Amino acid sequence: MKDPLHLFKIGGAVLEAPDELEETLAFFSNLPGRKLLVHGGGRRASHLSRQLGIEPKIHEGRRITDAETLDVVVMVYAGLENKRVVGMLQALGCNAIGLSGADGNVVLAKKRPVKDIDYGFVGDVTAVNTRALAALLEAGMTPVLCAITHDGKGQLLNTNADTIAAELAIALAGQYQANLYYCFEKPGVMTDVNDADSVIPLLDPELYASYREQGVIAEGMIPKLDNAFRALKAGAASVQVGGRKALALGKATQLVWTTEFPE
Amino acid sequence: MKDPLHLFKIGGAVLEAPDELEETLAFFSNLPGRKLLVHGGGRRASHLSRQLGIEPKIHEGRRITDAETLDVVVMVYAGLENKRVVGMLQALGCNAIGLSGADGNVVLAKKRPVKDIDYGFVGDVTAVNTRALAALLEAGMTPVLCAITHDGKGQLLNTNADTIAAELAIALAGQYQANLYYCFEKPGVMTDVNDADSVIPLLDPELYASYREQGVIAEGMIPKLDNAFRALKAGAASVQVGGRKALALGKATQLVWTTEFPE
Repeated sequence: MKDPLHLFKIGGAVLEAPDELEETLAFFSNLPGRKLLVHGGGRRASHLSRQLGIEPKIHEGRRITDAETLDVVVMVYAGLENKRVVGMLQALGCNAIGLSGADGNVVLAKKRPVKDIDYGFVGDVTAVNTRALAALLEAGMTPVLCAITHDGKGQLLNTNADTIAAELAIALAGQYQANLYYCFEKPGVMTDVNDADSVIPLLDPELYASYREQGVIAEGMIPKLDNAFRALKAGAASVQVGGRKALALGKATQLVWTTEFPE
Repeated sequence: MKDPLHLFKIGGAVLEAPDELEETLAFFSNLPGRKLLVHGGGRRASHLSRQLGIEPKIHEGRRITDAETLDVVVMVYAGLENKRVVGMLQALGCNAIGLSGADGNVVLAKKRPVKDIDYGFVGDVTAVNTRALAALLEAGMTPVLCAITHDGKGQLLNTNADTIAAELAIALAGQYQANLYYCFEKPGVMTDVNDADSVIPLLDPELYASYREQGVIAEGMIPKLDNAFRALKAGAASVQVGGRKALALGKATQLVWTTEFPE
């Protein structure tokens, strides 16, 4: 019987709202046993970028990361946001340890090849160092990962935080019962973004495909859910998508293989 | 017999010179056994501060850290510089893990009380978590500490890197044979800053007091050497001050209790 591990990803909108962040971290820090947090920070990065006279360039939700922009995201993700979250968790009695993928070589990536678009210093995950992460977890620490990885040759890379969370869940599923949570500003995956009662309780691949086809699930939710289903397929014990309150009440969207046998 | 631990502090001028940094990190990564690095980053912080329209304020070599400046130093020290150094060490085969004092609660500090000067969010070290640091060292990792600490209540603080290095050496001297190195842009403590041959090979408290009195040792060297002697007094096995080449050749300044019995 594997020990449970909670992998919790928090989105940019949660990071930006001080009260919501405080409540979310309090909820996270109360999760029993081993846990790990992954965070983004894109909004603050765009703000700093503009302050420094660099206009952010986003293509299909992904930041085009030239050398100057890489410095900005490293400063914001690995510096400002990561240490703020770690400091808050420490105050909550949770022994957080902030990491980029370079730290302890925990997430290795490869610079994305230039095809139609040159994303610049953007990395696709190639390996997760489960040994280092397990050493931290077993020493009673709570890793807090930002969306920066490295190529092992001295180059830092920008990697989507949803993807990192999925990759960590997949890699750690061999050793732990990996429960993955995508915590964001909505209560769950909704059929109508303006109706809080429209949260889909159970989502299986068939239903997901149908909602995509109808355009009910669109835009930013698609890469998030693709990552989420990929993690579930590759061994994550459970995957939930939703807001802090909905997650706490078990009312967020739960991903399943078939709605006929949800458990 | 305690295991040796090398505690290596690199100064801002070393961080700013790409070739020198590369060489210094190569030297550091080749030190045998357990090791730990501490770095500053003040010059780059002043640069970013000015880019953001905040004029840096320095009083007696210490940065006055208001809320905006704290964000700047967290971004530069814990983000840009820390992750750059970690990435470079990883490329050298050294399993570095970058930390602020908040990470793993490794360095706890207290906001400096306001006396004549309000230093703002500047922290004086109150505790070092030797258990967490030893757990990382024993797991084969090399902690890389930046000059950011925390108060345990969610507040990050700016702390002088020389002081952090000394506090770590003192705290870890109970468990390890702690060898402390202050690596900077000069070959060693010099009687004439313009004469490379004027490095003082052995410096004891008496000689130090006499050089201070004569004004031969002055300004920034004084807090550095005060920290260095404090570490030696409190149990560090050895303390050396000098440049990378001089340290490698054993030609940097070695601090001793008495020049009559240098070993």
